[in-house]
This record gives sequence, C-alpha cells and structure tokens, in this order.
Amino acid sequence: MARSVLKFGGTSVADLERILHVADIVAARARAGEKIAVIVSAMSGETNKLVSLSRGAAGEDLQDGDFSDEYDVVVASGEQVTSGLLALSLRRRGVRARSWLGWQMKMMTREGHGSARIDRFDYDSGLAEAIDGGEVAVIAGFQGISENGRVATLGRGGSDTTAVAVAAALKADCCDIYTDVDGVYTTDPRIVPNAKRLEKVSYEEMLEMASLGAKVLQTRSVELAMNHKVPVRVLSSFAAPGDDNPGTWVCSEEEIVEKQVVNGVTYSRDEAKITLLGMEDKPGMSARLFALMAREGVNVDMIVQANARGEGRANMVFTCTSADAMKARGVLEKHRDEGLYEDIDVTSDVAKVSVIGVGMKSHAGVAETMFDALFKKNINIDVIATSEIKISVLIDADYTELAVRALHTAFDLDVT
Amino acid sequence: MARSVLKFGGTSVADLERILHVADIVAARARAGEKIAVIVSAMSGETNKLVSLSRGAAGEDLQDGDFSDEYDVVVASGEQVTSGLLALSLRRRGVRARSWLGWQMKMMTREGHGSARIDRFDYDSGLAEAIDGGEVAVIAGFQGISENGRVATLGRGGSDTTAVAVAAALKADCCDIYTDVDGVYTTDPRIVPNAKRLEKVSYEEMLEMASLGAKVLQTRSVELAMNHKVPVRVLSSFAAPGDDNPGTWVCSEEEIVEKQVVNGVTYSRDEAKITLLGMEDKPGMSARLFALMAREGVNVDMIVQANARGEGRANMVFTCTSADAMKARGVLEKHRDEGLYEDIDVTSDVAKVSVIGVGMKSHAGVAETMFDALFKKNINIDVIATSEIKISVLIDADYTELAVRALHTAFDLDVT
Repeated sequence: MARSVLKFGGTSVADLERILHVADIVAARARAGEKIAVIVSAMSGETNKLVSLSRGAAGEDLQDGDFSDEYDVVVASGEQVTSGLLALSLRRRGVRARSWLGWQMKMMTREGHGSARIDRFDYDSGLAEAIDGGEVAVIAGFQGISENGRVATLGRGGSDTTAVAVAAALKADCCDIYTDVDGVYTTDPRIVPNAKRLEKVSYEEMLEMASLGAKVLQTRSVELAMNHKVPVRVLSSFAAPGDDNPGTWVCSEEEIVEKQVVNGVTYSRDEAKITLLGMEDKPGMSARLFALMAREGVNVDMIVQANARGEGRANMVFTCTSADAMKARGVLEKHRDEGLYEDIDVTSDVAKVSVIGVGMKSHAGVAETMFDALFKKNINIDVIATSEIKISVLIDADYTELAVRALHTAFDLDVT
Repeated sequence: MARSVLKFGGTSVADLERILHVADIVAARARAGEKIAVIVSAMSGETNKLVSLSRGAAGEDLQDGDFSDEYDVVVASGEQVTSGLLALSLRRRGVRARSWLGWQMKMMTREGHGSARIDRFDYDSGLAEAIDGGEVAVIAGFQGISENGRVATLGRGGSDTTAVAVAAALKADCCDIYTDVDGVYTTDPRIVPNAKRLEKVSYEEMLEMASLGAKVLQTRSVELAMNHKVPVRVLSSFAAPGDDNPGTWVCSEEEIVEKQVVNGVTYSRDEAKITLLGMEDKPGMSARLFALMAREGVNVDMIVQANARGEGRANMVFTCTSADAMKARGVLEKHRDEGLYEDIDVTSDVAKVSVIGVGMKSHAGVAETMFDALFKKNINIDVIATSEIKISVLIDADYTELAVRALHTAFDLDVT
C-alpha cells in the first residue's frame, strides 16, 4: 500500500482559494489510491502576526525562559486553523479527511520551546490506521508537545521537519514538499535567469545548500531525511493536479548515477566579518576568544588566522551573521584588556558565495576553476572555507550577483 | 485559602492594550493573596473571522456532521491565542502565570461539536496544585475535548460556562464575570436610561433574563451555577483595579432578603409568530404538529390554541425565532394535506416583552398591573405566557420600547 506524505507551506495555503487548490491536488492523489498524510503550515502572514502579538504582550523585559512556552501556545494556533480548514475543503471535494494536532498524534519534542526538536513520534494514536483506512490525515505542522505536556514549536520552517518525521514513522514512499517554486535550482533564478532545475540532488548537497542560504528546505528536515533515508521531493503547489510537475528528488548519493562536480551555486548576504588585529600570539588565545563567542550564542562560521607581523602578534578573521556581529562586538569590547586584540574591525558589506557538489570528492581542480572565474571578473577573495563537497568564499557584497553568474557559467550549469 | 475564578469576554481582551489592562486587574488581585484561575474568550472579532473561514472552506453542501468537528478545531484557536497572550502579560507584570488549554486540563464534553456540553472536569492535571501554589492559571474558555479526543467547543458564550464549571470544581469563593457592562440592570439602559443596576439577582431570575434576551450571561452557565450553587458576580472589566466596581451578584433566592415583585423587564425582537387557521379539531393533531417542529429542530416557545369557529376547526398560534420560522413554514407546507391547517400566516413583526421577579410567587396582581400598563399605552397583547416568576407577552414589534418603558415605570424600577 503506497503511503504518501505531502507538505504545503504558508504561501501554498495563503487564503481560502489556495487552500481549495491544495484540496484539489490532494483529492486527485487520494482518488488515485494513495494513502495520504498532509502536513500544513500556517496561512502566510499569520505566524508573523502571532509572533508580533506575543512580543507585544511580553514587552521587552521577559527573558526567553519566561517567554517561549507561551509564545509556542500562541503561534501554534496558526497551523491548527489551517489543518481544520483543509480537512473541511477536502470533505467538500468528497474526500474523507480529519485534522490532527500535535497533542493528538503524540508528537513528542525535547530541548524546550521556540525551536524544539522532535524526540519521538509514536503513532499509537490511530493516525496510521486512519490513513490506511483511506482517511486523509491533515496534520498541523511545526507543533508538538514537550515532556511536561505543554505546546512546543519546532522553529521557523518546522513544518518541513514534521513532514519528514511523519514520512519516516509511516515508512512513506515519498515525502513531497509542495512549495512556491517547482524544484531545487542550480542557483537563485532571480540572479541567473538560465538556472536549471535539478532532477536529483543528494542529501549532503541539499544540506549544504540549505545551510548556505537556499531557502527551499529547512536544514533540520534534510538532516532527518538523510538519517532515515526518506525520499523527499520538492515540487510546485501552484501547478494544477494534471500538470507536468516532476520537481526535484532529494535522495542518497548512490541513487544519483551521473554525479556533477558542481551541482549548485549559493550565496548569502547575511554575513559579517570581524577582524581582530594584533592578537597576542600565545597558546589559548583562540580558545578564549571562541569560548566568549559561544557563551554569547554567536555562531561562528569561517575562521582564518595569520601571523601578520612576525612579532608575537597575529590577526584573526572570522564571520558570523549580521545579527550576531553586534553581540560579538559588544562582548569583545568588554574583554579588550585581555590581550585578545589591539584593534577591531566589523563589517557587514560582505557576502558568502559557495559552490556545492558531491562530485568534488573525486575530482581535482574545482578550487582552481572557482578562483580563476572570480579573478577574471576582478573579484577579490577575502576568506576561504572548504568541506568535502563545497567551497565557500567571502567577497565584497557588491559583487555577489556577478560572482554567482560567473561561477554558474564556469561550472557549466547554464541551461543550454 | 480564597480561590477565585475570573472570566473576561471578547471585548475585554479585544487588543493588546485591553489584555494588558486585564493583566493589571488580575495582578492586583493576585498580589492581594487570591488564588486565581482566569478564563478568557477569543479577542473580539476573531471568532467571527474563524467562523467565516470555516464556512468558506466547507462551502454550502457539507452537513453538520461533516462540519462541526473541524469547525471546532478552527474556532477554538481563538481562545488559545488569548490565553497565551494573557499569561505573557501577567508575567510582564511580575505575576507567575501559565496558559491551560482544554486538552491539558481534561475538560471533557459530550453531545458532539459546535455546542457541546461540559460532561466532567477532573482536574488531576495539576491545575488546582498550580493555582494553590500561587501561579495564575489562564484557561482558554469555550473549549474542551470530546470522548474520542477531538476538540469540542461549547457554543457561543461558552466561556461563561467554562468559568462556572471551573469555579464549581475548584469550590471557588467567587466566579467574577468581567464584561463591558458594570452589572445586571433592571432593563436595557439603551431603552430606559434610568434603569437600575441590581445588587443581587437570583439564579432563577437570571435564567429567565438570559433566555428572554438579556445578553449578560449565557443561559447554560446560569443553570450550571444554580445547580452547583456557585456565587457569580457580573462586573465591569473597564474599571481600573482600584475603582469602586461592586457589580451584580447572582445567587440563591434565600440570600436575597428584600425580594422585589418584579426585578427586571426584558424584550426580544428575534421572534416570529406562526398562525395556523382551520386546524382539524381532533385528538393528536397538536402532537403531530409539534412532532414535526421538533424533528426539524424548531424551538417552539409560546403556544395558544383556540376553538375559533365552533365547527370542529381550531386556530393554533405559536412562536419561535425568526430563523426557525423559515424552517417551520417549509415543513408545514409539505404537510398541508394532513388537515393540519387550511391557511397559514407567518410574521416576524412581533416582539416578546417580559417582566421577571421571584417575588411574583407570593404576590398577586402582577398580571393586572402589567396588562393595565400596556392597555394605557394602547398596546395590544397578542399571546401571553407565564411561569412562576415571569409573565411574557407578544406584541407588535413597533411598540417594543414603549412597552418596556411603561412596564419599567409601572413596577417602580426607575432610578429615583
């Protein structure tokens, strides 16, 4: 029996008209014999409204521990509304359906509120029986319950994670993420109009793309899919039920026969570069620096250290998000006297551009091609970071689009 | 230990400013040492928005059984939002608080969806311990769960019923219903500017007032309060914490020393009169008629039968709400051939005006005073119905205000 998990995000359920369109898509698949669980997000705009109400009620002084649990109660209502509305729309289309809320399906979470993680999902709640009996389960995404029986939400984009968790538990044949684009592209089509839709992309590549700025899937959901080998497909929710809508499969590397050296080019402008000049060049200084950053919750990304002047002083460069940069500067200025630096410079006029591909593992010369393409456009490389399947460079933000286009062409990704 | 239950309706929590004002009221009482459960409604306007979304999703064809369960999922989200926001607002005021949803406090209901009744409320959920420990429990009103674990709502005004049920279970010293008026009045102050706020009113009187059109408290909540002897107070949510705000106590008749013969004058314009001319005057015809009405869910109120022509034919007059009148006419026209009537007349240009008072039980002459006052204003009485503590008359709707004012004066209720 083919079990399918379908997920529709906020723009796909933005209003009643869109919800009825989603009902048409789901109804067509249900009539074709699939046993279906649908995961829905809040109607787009609702979550922002609820977040702003929560912050308005709490004021500025409430700390996280006094805020997040009730914040979760408020924002989780958005998905509840959509799940009821889609269940009604499906019944209107003649399809048996019912809504399932986090507490009804025993979606247990851990690690507190606001960005909880799914701990376990034991569906002894009757969910699987209902689906197998031909009733579409319309599941409120993004929400679960904590150990002590409170509402807990999974953080932004959490409905993707709900979908993958449900697909894993149901051993579904597919986890189709319907969204406002028709698949995963080699790069942002707004910058490169002849970007290509990928037929397949590996979990590892998708993970890098998600964490490097491509907003198609939430990072945690990709991790979860990879761990449980859930076949995920990204496809368009705007197509009509009969339309050609192949999307992009996110799957294991082994299932991809023809591996591209580079499969995607991503960019992120939400970057800041912090340069510490004249750090004392003695053991333990870097450890001290990054311990301070970790304590403040600053997520450090790229790091470069260089002995600049050969006189017992070094320069240290690291990057983080723009939001974190303010926190980082604050804490560094408090600890200036400890020899961590003589001078500090913080700039947000930087962007990170990356090339990603599993083929890189077995293919030399990728870095050369990359640096050469950037050099030919007179783009200066500030910092470099690499992993097995990606190379990232930090450049002047003004050159972001130029760099993305140059790399997309250099790695033969343009539609021909 | 003084346990108090406080309830705030939709207009009292209409926006963030009002919610923070409610937090001030609750905080002042918590600081004075009361152990508090607060029941909240949805922010005013929210429920209507959610109802309209549900109907929009369902379309016109879904029957009640296919609609109400998911309707409940959608509309119950409104109270969930308010409970989280008020908990946050209380914490901001330095008061420990947390929200409680229907499923968390095991508020069990029966009789289906949309207008479920509270079946039992066993607070082994930790609610009572939390309250006694000094944490304000902010309870989402209007919602509970059905036997099979679905969300069930109590119908419009259901938060009053939640409040009384919680007060009964907690054996609370008071159940304060904060609302947009400062108490129960002898009649509608919009019609009679010198109407009086009542200090006390008996459960029985309040019940008649609620079902006869005074919208201060929901009928079921008064029944429940009467059955469990919960002392209910209606008072203003717009007063500041320190203001004089005595409200109106709703309590047992025995606690009211000086019983008024008439304590209130109510009216309702949502009435229709159905006249059946020439009904066959033989046994079983009335039973047949009202069985038909019951089957269609038409709630019949006043009934008068008269042998009009002394020739084996009778006329029958009954009243119901305007909405039910359409249904009644439909079913009657289908069964015309059964000798139920020769001719039918339906009009909505009627109003019901009533005088209510427990003192009536031991006091003669109330009907005389009433009819005389109406006669003096040339107001024709169409139908009369009485109970131990009320007399209702059906009159031409044009005379509603005139009748209310005349009766208010005739029974010495005007503020002097």
